[in-house]
Amino acid sequence: MTDDGDRAAAMLDEIAAVSEPGAGVTRLPFTAEHARALDIIRGWMEAAGLVVSLDAAGTLAGRLEGPPGAPTLLLGSHQDSVREGGRYDGIMGVLLPILAVEKLRERGIRLPFAVECLAFADEEGVRFPTALIGSRALAGRLDPAVLDMADADGVTLRAAMEGFGLDPEALPQAARDPGGMLGFLECHIEQGPVLQVENQALGVVTAICGIERHGVTLTGEAGHAGTIPMALRRDALAGAAEIIGEVERSARETDGLLGTVGALSVAPGVVNAVPGEVRMSVELRAPDDAVRETAGAAVHRFCGALAERRGLAVTARRDYAQPAIACDPQLTATLADAVKATGGAGLALPSGATHDASAMADLCPVTMLFVRCRDGISHNPAEYAAPADMGAAVAAIAGFIETLRPGQGA
Amino acid sequence: MTDDGDRAAAMLDEIAAVSEPGAGVTRLPFTAEHARALDIIRGWMEAAGLVVSLDAAGTLAGRLEGPPGAPTLLLGSHQDSVREGGRYDGIMGVLLPILAVEKLRERGIRLPFAVECLAFADEEGVRFPTALIGSRALAGRLDPAVLDMADADGVTLRAAMEGFGLDPEALPQAARDPGGMLGFLECHIEQGPVLQVENQALGVVTAICGIERHGVTLTGEAGHAGTIPMALRRDALAGAAEIIGEVERSARETDGLLGTVGALSVAPGVVNAVPGEVRMSVELRAPDDAVRETAGAAVHRFCGALAERRGLAVTARRDYAQPAIACDPQLTATLADAVKATGGAGLALPSGATHDASAMADLCPVTMLFVRCRDGISHNPAEYAAPADMGAAVAAIAGFIETLRPGQGA
Repeated sequence: MTDDGDRAAAMLDEIAAVSEPGAGVTRLPFTAEHARALDIIRGWMEAAGLVVSLDAAGTLAGRLEGPPGAPTLLLGSHQDSVREGGRYDGIMGVLLPILAVEKLRERGIRLPFAVECLAFADEEGVRFPTALIGSRALAGRLDPAVLDMADADGVTLRAAMEGFGLDPEALPQAARDPGGMLGFLECHIEQGPVLQVENQALGVVTAICGIERHGVTLTGEAGHAGTIPMALRRDALAGAAEIIGEVERSARETDGLLGTVGALSVAPGVVNAVPGEVRMSVELRAPDDAVRETAGAAVHRFCGALAERRGLAVTARRDYAQPAIACDPQLTATLADAVKATGGAGLALPSGATHDASAMADLCPVTMLFVRCRDGISHNPAEYAAPADMGAAVAAIAGFIETLRPGQGA
Repeated sequence: MTDDGDRAAAMLDEIAAVSEPGAGVTRLPFTAEHARALDIIRGWMEAAGLVVSLDAAGTLAGRLEGPPGAPTLLLGSHQDSVREGGRYDGIMGVLLPILAVEKLRERGIRLPFAVECLAFADEEGVRFPTALIGSRALAGRLDPAVLDMADADGVTLRAAMEGFGLDPEALPQAARDPGGMLGFLECHIEQGPVLQVENQALGVVTAICGIERHGVTLTGEAGHAGTIPMALRRDALAGAAEIIGEVERSARETDGLLGTVGALSVAPGVVNAVPGEVRMSVELRAPDDAVRETAGAAVHRFCGALAERRGLAVTARRDYAQPAIACDPQLTATLADAVKATGGAGLALPSGATHDASAMADLCPVTMLFVRCRDGISHNPAEYAAPADMGAAVAAIAGFIETLRPGQGA
């Protein structure tokens, strides 16, 4: 497994050089860097014996044909990065399935289904104000309105695709037939610290968390910090502190719930003034939508009671919500068995971040393999996955493909 | 008393017009507005039968001579305002003692001491990065180094004074002989809500609170709000929320203590990131220095325990401290009796803000009379004191002067 891992690390080093100038990797969709990356990925696919094609959304697919009429197993992730990101997020999940398929072919394994390895153009949503372009197109859920969205230079997505040699009018034909799809496996670095803490190279994802975001504004009364007695204060920040504590307490005590107050601003915001207004964010994530929505409603009730108790005006508005995506139990059980066959525990954990698998769930059953990530650092040049862990992932993906049987994932 | 109050309101309206353009009153020291204001105040003093002089610090003094060798009672406040301030802060405390002395003269009262009504040039410290210029000079505590401080236009205090016709070299001669001073009474709007809540026109000040300020920095670890489990987080803002709650709890439960977290900033400060760093201020005020210092030490201990418990690095540094000024018990008792003679309760309260009396305490015993302030609003064009309350203040000041006997205040 270490040989596969070392080879993967060298291949990722090579493609990491395909980047805009600057720290780490900056590779945005429908750019010269994207084109050069596809040349390299095409080479990986062809070396693995795959038949390569590019769809209208810029997704490169390497196909290993199966028996006539057999369904197709999809595997892959995205080629793009954030600005000054790392060399694993996305692209590692493009490479490792290709190496797994190559190993199976070398061993002469004949599969009862077709396999396609995918490299999506865009998942991060850094260049255009939309994300998941490739996976949404494949699932037939790309809203044509996004073609008119422009990047920071005023270039529309439509123009960028045309400049890349693609035909945006053909996007509807990129949608796959759900009936013919066995499922989708995405391999990705964890982007969190759980596998490192648990001393596991690999983990299987139970669900991709749903997310909701609330904007909370507390309005009290600003005043001189020397002249307003404590009993007469209506201090917006003291109220906000209670909400921060409540969000943390609720998330700590609720299985699977993540609660974060990430943004907060105070007015007037000076050392000698009682704060009159605070604006803050509350974000909740959970693999179970009912758990998340119950927690969100509880935050609103807490804000209402706080407002009354402290004489503050508190508005809490849910301004974003995205449901959870459950990973397919059968595919995930097969994946866990394959991880155990590599010596791992098959640790199950939710994904708190969104992935291409989120959009692919509209097309077919999905499952995800997480690879240990050093210190949980991601979207950063210091992002790192160890070669040995990537080698274990290649083995687990190969084992998953080899043991999967059509009908299991439906 | 209402007649005196209506007259005071009209006189304050007249001098409020002496202002830089803009909302409310902007009257800075050693400016054309200052000079015009002194012309008006000189007129008030002369109408009250006082002999007027200007000292080297720009303090206008109107003196009513006493018996040979008798000590002097000082009364007054500052003529300057903050930018776009109100028409009561400072200047009301210049005017009302003049009206009180005028009443005593009209009644033919002969006092066993001299009386001087003062109008200090600068208390607010808005133009130059120093404050309390007039009262410090009178107390012999003005550091000559401040003469080299410059305003926003690069004009030094020395040049501004010279331009105003003053001789900065003569500043040491502005210092009064402590042995000849009976005491100092400052009348000022409360700038807080206590008298309004207690339904009292007037209050007597027990002490001017000491102040200490702490800069607190909490450093945890920033991370993705979706991928870091609650148990593995080192959330700087969740830690800060505990400190905010502790400062409030401590101040609410400790008699006389005010505790305020007024400024707070979060990094990275976005909705989907666990906060990695928070910088915040903690301000404590109390009329008793031991109470304040005990509370400050407790905040530091709380920060230390919090750091350990949450795995954060927390630095708390006291970067400012100013001791409390006790008002003289005898002068204050005499003042409380005078307030009661007007029908008031003689309510005692601390001053959370600094005043000229803070600096005058270096020269002689001090006492302060607070006048009710609508809704606690100050440093704002909406600042308001009712004419009836100002009339009560004139009566109380007159009664204080009439009943005070040399030797009481020492």
